[in-house]
Amino acid sequence: MTDTVTDIFRPDVTRIDINLGERSYPILIGEGLLDTAGDHLAALLPRKRTAIVTDENVAEQHLQRLLDACEKAGIEAEPIVLPAGESSKSFPHLEWLCEQLLEMGIERKDAIVAFGGGVIGDLVGFAASILRRGCPFVQIPTTLLSQVDSSVGGKTGINTPQGKNLIGAFHQPRLVLIDTGVIDTLPDRELMAGYAEVVKYGLIDDPAFFAWLEENVEDVLAGEPAKRAHAIATSCRAKARVVEQDEFETKGLRALLNLGHTFGHALEAEKGYGGDLLHGEAVALGMVLAFELSVEMGLCPPEDLERVRNHLALVGLPTTLAKVGLEGMGETLVAHMAQDKKMEAGRLTFILARGIGKSFLERNVDMEQVKALLNRPSA
Amino acid sequence: MTDTVTDIFRPDVTRIDINLGERSYPILIGEGLLDTAGDHLAALLPRKRTAIVTDENVAEQHLQRLLDACEKAGIEAEPIVLPAGESSKSFPHLEWLCEQLLEMGIERKDAIVAFGGGVIGDLVGFAASILRRGCPFVQIPTTLLSQVDSSVGGKTGINTPQGKNLIGAFHQPRLVLIDTGVIDTLPDRELMAGYAEVVKYGLIDDPAFFAWLEENVEDVLAGEPAKRAHAIATSCRAKARVVEQDEFETKGLRALLNLGHTFGHALEAEKGYGGDLLHGEAVALGMVLAFELSVEMGLCPPEDLERVRNHLALVGLPTTLAKVGLEGMGETLVAHMAQDKKMEAGRLTFILARGIGKSFLERNVDMEQVKALLNRPSA
Repeated sequence: MTDTVTDIFRPDVTRIDINLGERSYPILIGEGLLDTAGDHLAALLPRKRTAIVTDENVAEQHLQRLLDACEKAGIEAEPIVLPAGESSKSFPHLEWLCEQLLEMGIERKDAIVAFGGGVIGDLVGFAASILRRGCPFVQIPTTLLSQVDSSVGGKTGINTPQGKNLIGAFHQPRLVLIDTGVIDTLPDRELMAGYAEVVKYGLIDDPAFFAWLEENVEDVLAGEPAKRAHAIATSCRAKARVVEQDEFETKGLRALLNLGHTFGHALEAEKGYGGDLLHGEAVALGMVLAFELSVEMGLCPPEDLERVRNHLALVGLPTTLAKVGLEGMGETLVAHMAQDKKMEAGRLTFILARGIGKSFLERNVDMEQVKALLNRPSA
Repeated sequence: MTDTVTDIFRPDVTRIDINLGERSYPILIGEGLLDTAGDHLAALLPRKRTAIVTDENVAEQHLQRLLDACEKAGIEAEPIVLPAGESSKSFPHLEWLCEQLLEMGIERKDAIVAFGGGVIGDLVGFAASILRRGCPFVQIPTTLLSQVDSSVGGKTGINTPQGKNLIGAFHQPRLVLIDTGVIDTLPDRELMAGYAEVVKYGLIDDPAFFAWLEENVEDVLAGEPAKRAHAIATSCRAKARVVEQDEFETKGLRALLNLGHTFGHALEAEKGYGGDLLHGEAVALGMVLAFELSVEMGLCPPEDLERVRNHLALVGLPTTLAKVGLEGMGETLVAHMAQDKKMEAGRLTFILARGIGKSFLERNVDMEQVKALLNRPSA
């Protein structure tokens, strides 16, 4: 492992640029990048000081490596450690974090580091966006889910009793640093949940990538470096393409990234974000439901639904409502959907599919049909 | 008073445009605009429904007029009433307000109305900026201070124990509607506090406006319609010029609007935002201190300091630290200044003056000299 900023010359380090004018930034993907993180951060820190915000689990496993990397680069890095879990994405934790950062004397040009999974990235990114009306921040995602999804694109936020991510901001990071080796220590269930978002990119508009995943899923999950990096980089590139064209989700395009999420958010809302149902698990089942609805509406060949269901089931992701204890709850789940952020003039937008890699937005969905689908014993 | 949107043809209604590309918006200034507010709002409300967020005092005095105006325009307007006072600019009230708005089913394209003084404008604008990652909002300022300053320019935020406005966002309103008649019901002390910000625009870069104010202060404060409208419109135009050139306060220019604020914020921080010292009062004294420092540094003719002090004292604004019970507290006040949002690499930016209408930014100020100035019995 090198300890200078020569990462960009390493053939196994991939750089993907998110082109958003003055908010552009690079994503770097490679094994061991944590050890050279200090050099990358130093370029973004005028005062060579930063706060590294993380959770208890990540702190225990990886924090020392990042602190060492900062020290090597002459950066004074102070850690702030939050409890692990979705409950940190709340107003009380946001308030606490903001006050910690203010007490540390973080100024408007000091970049903050979000070091963890999606919860940390969303919370810290949001805190950065409102601290002194906006500070820069860096994402160092430590879960597969955050590496391929939440760390890229600038969506930040917290949850409220009314639903997930209903409070937040669009705030792009200055850099996303993805160490593909860090996820080796992830619990299997979290790895699979992240994998659901990887599959999503194939289902949206890249049937060849979905076919590649069908071939290579075992190597990707086992951590074969080149294949894992390929899966992550392909996902990031797909997300970058969409974000570049619709940064603020005003054109409908970005909504495609929500394939499986309209259903998924309702499932999560009902389960209570306590860890019973991980976000990626909810998305996996949500994607199956979106394909089922598409088949039922006569839009999608049933064989494609079968391929989706089989692939997700193969890795152990939930593909039926019964599996997650939510069968026969159509009424309740539809009520949760009505709280969706993307609701417009009282109408919900669904992402449906004409097949694998052929997703599209549909505003004219009959909610009675959705309810019936969710109440069907086999769903 | 007309009840159709023909306000733009009324010779006594002034329209000032803030040109910020896709974030551009108009300010309308005139007496009685509250009664035609519904028509102006309707154009911004795709679903003809809105939340009007206000405080107890404003609700008691003016809410019914605004609700009537909305009803006439076919808008379903639901009021949300907060306690009056600076303490509403806090995390707990922000959380409460966001949850109220979510419970009401406010969606991403529904505009919210901030109806009140600076506290309501700052809090509601901030809530709008983070609700579903950003909703539009309209400012209907009801104090002189908010009409000439806080409602224009898109700065929103809340306070924390570490200081004022340290958490917030830049979020431009879609419309600022200034009914110059509404401030007739303001308590004298609040009217004077707002007047301090009017004077500020003369001191920054418009010596002719300051001279006009010296001539016309009595009429402006007594509510002579044309002169009051002129004072408000001149202030809004001055602010618009600066905001257009430096929307996000990255170029130093916008910092000029902080004349008197570096000192003022420290005074307020020490007084605790409880109403002992109003923001405008702190700014008035802060401007005197900035001119005193400028004179002491040999930058500004002492006669100009005298004109500033005399004009502010004439209307009853505080012009000495003794007057507000903060004499001999240099050490403490300088410590408060060190928490300023505009601090950069540990240095504070002061707005000093080479004379009336000749303000400029200065980063090289000796904090020992500032401390000594604040400790001087006559300051």
